[in-house]
Amino acid sequence: MAEKPKKPQKLRARLPRGLADRGPAEIAATRAMVEKIREVYERYGFEPVETPAFEYTDALGKFLPDQDRPNEGVFSLQDDDEQWISLRYDLTAPLARYVAENFDQLPKPYRSYRFGWVFRNEKPGPGRFRQFMQFDADTVGSGSPAADAEMCMMAADTMEALGIPRGSYLVKLNNRKILDGVLEAIGIGGDEHIKQRLVVLRAIDKLDRLGLQGVEQLLGEGRKDESGDFTRGASLNAGQIRDVITLLNFAGWGDIVDGSNTHTLDEWEGLRFSVNSTFSAGIQDLRQITKITEASGYDTGRIRVDNTVVRGLEYYTGPVFEVELLLDTKDEKGRPVRFGSVGGGGRYDGLVSRFRGEPVPATGFSIGVSRLQAALTLIGQLGNKPQAGPVVVTVFGGEIAGYQKMVATLRKAGIRAELYLGNPKHSLGQQMKYADKRNSPCAIIQGSDEKQQGIVQIKDLILGAELASLEKDRDEYLKKQAEAQFSCKEDEMVAKVQELLQRRGVAWG
Amino acid sequence: MAEKPKKPQKLRARLPRGLADRGPAEIAATRAMVEKIREVYERYGFEPVETPAFEYTDALGKFLPDQDRPNEGVFSLQDDDEQWISLRYDLTAPLARYVAENFDQLPKPYRSYRFGWVFRNEKPGPGRFRQFMQFDADTVGSGSPAADAEMCMMAADTMEALGIPRGSYLVKLNNRKILDGVLEAIGIGGDEHIKQRLVVLRAIDKLDRLGLQGVEQLLGEGRKDESGDFTRGASLNAGQIRDVITLLNFAGWGDIVDGSNTHTLDEWEGLRFSVNSTFSAGIQDLRQITKITEASGYDTGRIRVDNTVVRGLEYYTGPVFEVELLLDTKDEKGRPVRFGSVGGGGRYDGLVSRFRGEPVPATGFSIGVSRLQAALTLIGQLGNKPQAGPVVVTVFGGEIAGYQKMVATLRKAGIRAELYLGNPKHSLGQQMKYADKRNSPCAIIQGSDEKQQGIVQIKDLILGAELASLEKDRDEYLKKQAEAQFSCKEDEMVAKVQELLQRRGVAWG
Repeated sequence: MAEKPKKPQKLRARLPRGLADRGPAEIAATRAMVEKIREVYERYGFEPVETPAFEYTDALGKFLPDQDRPNEGVFSLQDDDEQWISLRYDLTAPLARYVAENFDQLPKPYRSYRFGWVFRNEKPGPGRFRQFMQFDADTVGSGSPAADAEMCMMAADTMEALGIPRGSYLVKLNNRKILDGVLEAIGIGGDEHIKQRLVVLRAIDKLDRLGLQGVEQLLGEGRKDESGDFTRGASLNAGQIRDVITLLNFAGWGDIVDGSNTHTLDEWEGLRFSVNSTFSAGIQDLRQITKITEASGYDTGRIRVDNTVVRGLEYYTGPVFEVELLLDTKDEKGRPVRFGSVGGGGRYDGLVSRFRGEPVPATGFSIGVSRLQAALTLIGQLGNKPQAGPVVVTVFGGEIAGYQKMVATLRKAGIRAELYLGNPKHSLGQQMKYADKRNSPCAIIQGSDEKQQGIVQIKDLILGAELASLEKDRDEYLKKQAEAQFSCKEDEMVAKVQELLQRRGVAWG
Repeated sequence: MAEKPKKPQKLRARLPRGLADRGPAEIAATRAMVEKIREVYERYGFEPVETPAFEYTDALGKFLPDQDRPNEGVFSLQDDDEQWISLRYDLTAPLARYVAENFDQLPKPYRSYRFGWVFRNEKPGPGRFRQFMQFDADTVGSGSPAADAEMCMMAADTMEALGIPRGSYLVKLNNRKILDGVLEAIGIGGDEHIKQRLVVLRAIDKLDRLGLQGVEQLLGEGRKDESGDFTRGASLNAGQIRDVITLLNFAGWGDIVDGSNTHTLDEWEGLRFSVNSTFSAGIQDLRQITKITEASGYDTGRIRVDNTVVRGLEYYTGPVFEVELLLDTKDEKGRPVRFGSVGGGGRYDGLVSRFRGEPVPATGFSIGVSRLQAALTLIGQLGNKPQAGPVVVTVFGGEIAGYQKMVATLRKAGIRAELYLGNPKHSLGQQMKYADKRNSPCAIIQGSDEKQQGIVQIKDLILGAELASLEKDRDEYLKKQAEAQFSCKEDEMVAKVQELLQRRGVAWG
């Protein structure tokens, strides 16, 4: 027996992990969010500037948290000229390159904003995306605490512009100098301990997820997780660990009495670390920042010092901030969800300097748009309802060109409309099923009889759907049934459709 | 002598070739364009859907023009699981994957639009970008000529919505079947000649750039370009070349008499190739399409058959279209620029089928947003004028918090405002220079005297700039000088600034 010819293998339609398609509701929600954020950032005097998706790998630097191998976490490839290029993993590192490259032409301080996709080559995991959107604002060329204060206030204003009520978010403020001071005080300051300090930083950054005990393990020899994987710790001794934990226990959440951060800062200053000048400078920064925010009416209900905040990115050098959503809500399966951080930022005085060879202070704030959008969707702040679809002009034999002309007439009047482009032999029922699936407000019907009379039938699909839920034979039903399909002259079609759209409250946008 | 310690090498701030940063005017122009295109596409009944930047390399397929090595032209890298992934080189191939993956849930025909960045790993060259923006619409699941006709009409409507006057653009329409028919007729039909046909296609696609003689060389043995590089040709014999050139000479530009494409199509049908059924089917398609477009009022001044159009992408199977800008204009250096194609598309009946193993007809249209934007900017259709900057509150000693509060007050009233965040010891002159560079409409000044009196000075920077061009000592000058800086009570500041903004016609957006 001869072998059967092999059937050619079909290509499988699928996406690489950590990537997602986006439908109409999601796209509309992102657009609405982006517009609101932009409005706030522009009110704060920031102007747009955008950089491309790729940068030279060395220009981006290696500042990602949780990455032990070089280049891990970043999508990189070698260019034709052998140089390595990478997709941006955030919007800050590319901005630093941009400012350095255009330094002399830019106003200083240089205040700019941008949003766009960033890429991280993360390990697989639920909810871990490899492409997501950020919206950043940065002030480069100012070392003033007022610049940091502004970022915190803008973060708060942005949350409220997005419909998150006061009390449901918190901008948490800390200073890398405070932790640095403690680490100096316990004997791991200096360049020779730079790696160890980084491990400490990453351990503290996991406080939310692992709790104090987990952090304690990571400050010591290390920690074995549920899967049995072991993460090496910072190898601090027992006394050193106790000191760091003391600091973390002093977050100062308990003693807010009059909306001022002063009391918490006084307490921190009372710690024995304050003999260390770095620690003490960190406190002074925070005093200046909170003095400004509080004078502008932002009390501890909105902006609050919290020394558990460290931010994972390596490039921060001073004040750091994080926006936390305080909403507890349930996911689709009824499980409680705590959103945690939806944005953050801080001072990165070293990032532009890498290119310039001179100090260039800078501070910035970044919103995780994709993450925040997921949160807002869950609390119902973003519409998930599909928009009304287009008016569908159905097709029954005859000349396609005639039907197409009706469509053109509707479109010319600004009405979203389309010709049924499926098989023109499909029944009215099949064409209506399509219109329903498109969420169309109405359909236009013209058979040969209507054509001869110069009329069209207009079928109100919104009313039609209501009818389906009414008891038949009642007066209301019969009245509505008459209203749900009616005829008019061809040249009245536009006006009648416009009336129907208004009657049904259809407004596209 | 001991060696000097090496100075650490400064990182160079630069972008990889073929990538560009974008400033405020460019970003605003893209936004305006995208909004207008979206409005037209939605009026045509298309709904948004977006795919991510990456796809599996095999899902994208290899359809790029001008690429001889596999994978050339595409940015690809190997994922952790050894599978190859690539950045999308257009928006059509990813859509085909999306439709195939979600086939059962989608309405059919499925009409969708999307815009976004695409990436091509092009060889270096002026004006050749490796990241650019496209805006696409596609109808998947309809083989109707009405679907193709709609793409052509939408292309025309979009150009006009973007401010390109009728007569300054042309949608050119052709059919791959016509060329295929000719190639069958001259003996290079069939699977065994697939590569040769592709070389012919690419040769014709270069007609604009190389002229008939260059195409003739590429149809034959090949062509040596100015740099001495040799491109191998399709190796057609003299008779075959003559036949293809005959076709190209029959573009039919000369005989437009009444705005109808019929005459041109009649002429094509008169060619001896029309005994070939593929050729003849191609003509019939075009007759149906142009019948629809002409019935809807789109004459040959807007949509015209032209058999020199082939489109470079391999995946087209039937009608193809291209939008050409007919504007001749000059670049910054006064050299004439002809923009050529700013968009195009066609029918790609095989692209979704690769995944489905069943026929899925589809047609689409794509605007090269970046390319069109360059053209519109050059003809002055897009504003290049920078927007007004924010109101700048200047700083003179005293408490920063007090100045910041003024800024917060202005912002709360919806006024774009910022604190001067440069060195607070900078002189008024230095701070004004910054405000000028930001294009600020006015600045707020409060020294210690003003503070004691509870007043602020408002400096009108727009009027100030006008003053600089007036002769001094004239009445007008003195009057304006008084108007250009005035004082008011602190609590009148918002109202006075709002008046000034209105007086100077400052409207942010």
